[in-house]
Amino acid sequence: MKNDSFETLSCPMPIMHHDTIQLAHGAGGTLSFDLIERLFLPRFGNDMLNRLEDQAVLEFPGQRLAFTTDSFVVDPLFFPGGDIGGLSIYGTVNDICMSGATPLYVSVAFILEEGLPMETLHRIVVRMEEAAKESGVMVVTGDTKVVDKGSCDKLFINTTGIGVVPEGVNISVNNLNVGDRILLSGTIADHGMAVMTSRKGLSFQSQVQSDCAALNGLVAVMLEQTKDIHAMRDPTRGGLATTLNEFARSSKVGIQLNGDQIPVNPEVQGACEVLGIDPLYVANEGKLVAVVLPGEAENVLKAMRKHKYGREAVIIGEVVEEHPGIVAMSTGFGAERIIDMSVGEQLPRIC
Amino acid sequence: MKNDSFETLSCPMPIMHHDTIQLAHGAGGTLSFDLIERLFLPRFGNDMLNRLEDQAVLEFPGQRLAFTTDSFVVDPLFFPGGDIGGLSIYGTVNDICMSGATPLYVSVAFILEEGLPMETLHRIVVRMEEAAKESGVMVVTGDTKVVDKGSCDKLFINTTGIGVVPEGVNISVNNLNVGDRILLSGTIADHGMAVMTSRKGLSFQSQVQSDCAALNGLVAVMLEQTKDIHAMRDPTRGGLATTLNEFARSSKVGIQLNGDQIPVNPEVQGACEVLGIDPLYVANEGKLVAVVLPGEAENVLKAMRKHKYGREAVIIGEVVEEHPGIVAMSTGFGAERIIDMSVGEQLPRIC
Repeated sequence: MKNDSFETLSCPMPIMHHDTIQLAHGAGGTLSFDLIERLFLPRFGNDMLNRLEDQAVLEFPGQRLAFTTDSFVVDPLFFPGGDIGGLSIYGTVNDICMSGATPLYVSVAFILEEGLPMETLHRIVVRMEEAAKESGVMVVTGDTKVVDKGSCDKLFINTTGIGVVPEGVNISVNNLNVGDRILLSGTIADHGMAVMTSRKGLSFQSQVQSDCAALNGLVAVMLEQTKDIHAMRDPTRGGLATTLNEFARSSKVGIQLNGDQIPVNPEVQGACEVLGIDPLYVANEGKLVAVVLPGEAENVLKAMRKHKYGREAVIIGEVVEEHPGIVAMSTGFGAERIIDMSVGEQLPRIC
Repeated sequence: MKNDSFETLSCPMPIMHHDTIQLAHGAGGTLSFDLIERLFLPRFGNDMLNRLEDQAVLEFPGQRLAFTTDSFVVDPLFFPGGDIGGLSIYGTVNDICMSGATPLYVSVAFILEEGLPMETLHRIVVRMEEAAKESGVMVVTGDTKVVDKGSCDKLFINTTGIGVVPEGVNISVNNLNVGDRILLSGTIADHGMAVMTSRKGLSFQSQVQSDCAALNGLVAVMLEQTKDIHAMRDPTRGGLATTLNEFARSSKVGIQLNGDQIPVNPEVQGACEVLGIDPLYVANEGKLVAVVLPGEAENVLKAMRKHKYGREAVIIGEVVEEHPGIVAMSTGFGAERIIDMSVGEQLPRIC
């Protein structure tokens, strides 16, 4: 496998008894311990994980806890701009911080296919370590299952995260009010198109890169501006269109978008046109949509633009009284269209 | 598929748009919502889950939190005495309560194979609902991924759980002291042999039943006797032998077992003999091993025997100064053997 992601590995492969995953690596015996002690603990180790109990016992510094789970089945495992390991940490960190919470702890559960090259697993684990450090979360408990060859495709990862919700923060898809402004942190459709174009048989001159990144730093600077963020979400599967539909339906309000304001990278736009895909429905992994009071919008936007993951942040629309439950979009040509929720599956296994 | 587990279903199959799982059921659009609203919410619904945010925000009533994750890949999905759904709840509840914690919240993440019969998923979800009610935990957040046909074997489930650790409880594999007694809550090897013998090509006259069950009730009655349980674990993958080896190694003490005291159901013993498997290494899913002070052992044992999952509880040995890190077992014939940690995989996909 040839990929940019392979060139920047920060630590050498440990010496293992086997070059590939064996069924016994999931059996709870000597080989399971080998995997834990040589591959996992050197990367993820901390006081809580090192105890190797079947559960982590953690100090919890608050009254309100954010809790989220995600399985990652992305194909291919390594794609331009990212890999399943980094994605599995970022995805859960992002789901936690979309509630305004500070992500603290993560569990990691692998399902491995018998025969998976040990080196592939090692590369992924190294990426997870880097992503966890960048996001400021600790891996505190885990699980490894191995299934016989053919019973899963290489490897799947589940991560589940815990965060602490600060006092006074109350973010929910039910909280949109008429007049609120809708902020988007940057370009859309990068992740989904990066995975899509990296699949066998598709190649574009200028390679599209995934945007996968941890958004908790960006959320922190936004919360410094106002604790009164009404709704916030990272538009992953189903894309921006699906997230905005969920907002409109849950809060029983209309959403009016200015289509010309929604940024799309030119190479992503090109790939979407070639493949006949609407970027509004394509997954993002490092973007967020936030809904705030009209009086707060400019300040929050300014703060976002100072952060590396919000440089291209824009106000893309507002919450309206008309057409409750419906997302409408106008474009520069004066056209108006309804943006419905996605029905089918455009891109299986994008995350 | 014909199985006892299929006959006691407590609620009818909802009307779904498709009889089998489609890729779009995992795409985050309309079909994903269909699955959530018709299949998952009617079974798992509660105030926190019903909000359908990407994360649950939970009240947390304590300072110390127990956190554990497990993926379930058992084959077959339905086996004598249980199924993957019940197992996925019990397994995580048990890992939480082995720290002495009260299990509170569970996340559920499905990886589904395209084409899985909707009815199979429904049956499993109903079992999960029953198991969650029995265990007193709430499903508060979840995730569903669908992979193309052939990329996973039917379905895998990850559950991750949170519990609150009571003050004064400090259970760890590192806490064994010389003189401590080792208690076992009942017969061993039932789960592993039930799965093994239910696989294609193996049938035994008297069918072996899995012991899978939630142990938090049993732990509660034990903690009423003493908060000073030194170590406790449910001996799942790798069996009783592996758990006791982990105790001995982590606490750097020896363990001396009385082999005649370890209960094994006659049909399980028979199946083990036919297949040449040592029951000490076979997985359990409704048993626990606890280590307590010698002066507390009889009281804790008495309390355990009054609970339905501890009726056959016994003292199987004690912690000794000799042979640190090693588990030794004597039998009625005066023989002494070393019980090592398992090396290979005897029973892939037993949980």
